[in-house]
Amino acid sequence: MKNILILGGDGYLGWPTAMYLSSKNYKVTVVDNYFRRNICKEKNIESLLSNPDLIQRSNLWYKLTGKEIKVSIGDLTEISFMDSLFNGKIKLDWGNNNSFDLPDTVIHFAEQPSAPFSMIDSEKSNFTLINNVISTNNLINSIKKFNIKAHIIKLGTMGEYGTPNIDIEEGWLNVEHNNRKQKFLYPRQASSIYHTSKIMDTDLLWFAVRTWKIKVTDLMQGPVYGIFTKQTELNENLSTIFNYDEIFGTVINRFLTQAVIGYPLTIYGKGNQTRGYININDSIKCIELAIQNEPKNGELRIFNQISETLSVNQIAAKIVDCCKTIGISAQTSNKINPRVENEDHYYNPKYQALKDLGFKPSLFNEEIIIKMINEILKYKKNINESAIFNGVKW
Amino acid sequence: MKNILILGGDGYLGWPTAMYLSSKNYKVTVVDNYFRRNICKEKNIESLLSNPDLIQRSNLWYKLTGKEIKVSIGDLTEISFMDSLFNGKIKLDWGNNNSFDLPDTVIHFAEQPSAPFSMIDSEKSNFTLINNVISTNNLINSIKKFNIKAHIIKLGTMGEYGTPNIDIEEGWLNVEHNNRKQKFLYPRQASSIYHTSKIMDTDLLWFAVRTWKIKVTDLMQGPVYGIFTKQTELNENLSTIFNYDEIFGTVINRFLTQAVIGYPLTIYGKGNQTRGYININDSIKCIELAIQNEPKNGELRIFNQISETLSVNQIAAKIVDCCKTIGISAQTSNKINPRVENEDHYYNPKYQALKDLGFKPSLFNEEIIIKMINEILKYKKNINESAIFNGVKW
Repeated sequence: MKNILILGGDGYLGWPTAMYLSSKNYKVTVVDNYFRRNICKEKNIESLLSNPDLIQRSNLWYKLTGKEIKVSIGDLTEISFMDSLFNGKIKLDWGNNNSFDLPDTVIHFAEQPSAPFSMIDSEKSNFTLINNVISTNNLINSIKKFNIKAHIIKLGTMGEYGTPNIDIEEGWLNVEHNNRKQKFLYPRQASSIYHTSKIMDTDLLWFAVRTWKIKVTDLMQGPVYGIFTKQTELNENLSTIFNYDEIFGTVINRFLTQAVIGYPLTIYGKGNQTRGYININDSIKCIELAIQNEPKNGELRIFNQISETLSVNQIAAKIVDCCKTIGISAQTSNKINPRVENEDHYYNPKYQALKDLGFKPSLFNEEIIIKMINEILKYKKNINESAIFNGVKW
Repeated sequence: MKNILILGGDGYLGWPTAMYLSSKNYKVTVVDNYFRRNICKEKNIESLLSNPDLIQRSNLWYKLTGKEIKVSIGDLTEISFMDSLFNGKIKLDWGNNNSFDLPDTVIHFAEQPSAPFSMIDSEKSNFTLINNVISTNNLINSIKKFNIKAHIIKLGTMGEYGTPNIDIEEGWLNVEHNNRKQKFLYPRQASSIYHTSKIMDTDLLWFAVRTWKIKVTDLMQGPVYGIFTKQTELNENLSTIFNYDEIFGTVINRFLTQAVIGYPLTIYGKGNQTRGYININDSIKCIELAIQNEPKNGELRIFNQISETLSVNQIAAKIVDCCKTIGISAQTSNKINPRVENEDHYYNPKYQALKDLGFKPSLFNEEIIIKMINEILKYKKNINESAIFNGVKW
């Protein structure tokens, strides 16, 4: 089985992906600097669920399954730390030091993932740019120096495309102009510093693929929702970080938590803003498909990783309906949009390539909504209402 | 007259632009951290000419002309330093402290400007990305906080476009796709980390213009050549930094210096690589046109700033011919290309917008070539042959 290195293994997607791949007998190593959990603690916007640190969770995972998820704690913006993951000099904080093999596949989640966080002030704007761009540049450079055959799977975002008035293709656009033709990266125009930092990652990866023939899959993912996977359900202390605050909580997770405590669902502006969404279990399956189906060296392969498109109003209406079914009275409340974004726009993204590899999307339907609400209800007493809306502005 | 703030005022373009605008009675302040001159000293690739520091040169300029070019020395990647230029708390290192007015126009040259430098190793790659992206982000944030009407004139590069197989438009591309239309930033794909950092600057500026309605002119400039302006000719100690090494020396300046010492002109690969070039005096005139003709708030105006297109072989042939005329025997030498770039490619950039504002391009002709050679001959004894080619590789 392939050796998988997960950068950002403590995150919302990182840890469940690590357990899933470990359960399938991939050899998994996770790396993190605990930025996300530390900043959540500092800002008093902590996860709804109990999240022991990576060493404790890897230890528990080992006890329950007999499988090892190795752990290395460090900052990927430091060149020497990134190099250590590829040159055989890794320092493990958990796991058998004698058996580390160089990665076949690197899954790069190690980015500051919040648009609102990137917009709080100049310092956080700069932090987001440096953390995201330099971690990606260091990854490219370490691969180039030590391990040119390793496959990078990079988490991009559908937000890189913005909301253009033409169909959104999967990563590329064929242009005919003055009777000549050129295939370009699909033009990107994002609406936060975070999303702009992801465009910069794409700029870097495309340069590196052309120049050094590295091997990259860039997954343009929509906002992810969901609270459990088969593996997190094994034990409460294997849960993923679940944020419901306005900074790190994605809209569906946030709205469901608001519904549970009777906090009106905070619709920004008109609520016609439409995006592609994906369940956390679908996201992990897509990543596995990318691992199993490698691009060639010198190829930048781009997939749009979503299961369906929904407007904010559609999401709110589905949640309100399901709440009614189970006897919860949920309401909505329109807020003056704190963001600068189009509230009425064309949105027609293509998302066929992952389906062609076998991906079967699951939808945001009554079954999943009610299951998520029931799960959140168990932790109702933990919900900190003051985290939900403070109006971080653009 | 407008108050002009020049970021990167110690550089090849920064200092001559400062003197030119000061001579035209603009109120000019220059800012720099001396990165370029320090790194050139460290790497033993110093300027051909004598370049006293900014304080000494401003002092001399004042003695010769009675005009004041204010100086503030600091690092523009520090938020508080950038803020000080816009919030009235500037700390001047030269010039009358009581009379500093907030800038009407900011000319942003403050970037690590060398493609080869950015490709030396991981540290210099990261430095280039951080310096260039964060200085631009800080500029945007300070303008947003303190001075939203200030006009940013940003030096971009034609290298952002790369060498696509279709015509290069001025900044934007109208796309028709599946019977719908969208105007996009012209898709960019550069071939060094430096050039990629400039694409990132464009990503940031475009985000900021849409979000906060700042006012930006982005000048997509080709490689600049030239050694003197009317102002540098006033006194030897008012010269600009003139590099002829493989790291900071642009190809024309480098080839002319090589010709003077009988070092065969180093043509990388086939030499059919074609770019847009511009003389330093033309470059300064274009900047003045941008100052005089402001865009509106909320507008990102992009001009391609070149005077003509030339291949490396054409440049070399012109130089060899002119050398013959004045009795210098110049030769060429084809080197295995140390860069990853297309050596045969389509290249048809548009550059009409600045001409529409009154720009009259001067060309790389016998007159300018012979004048430059005669100037370089005066400093022949200073030329350090070992700086010319060490083969920094991509």
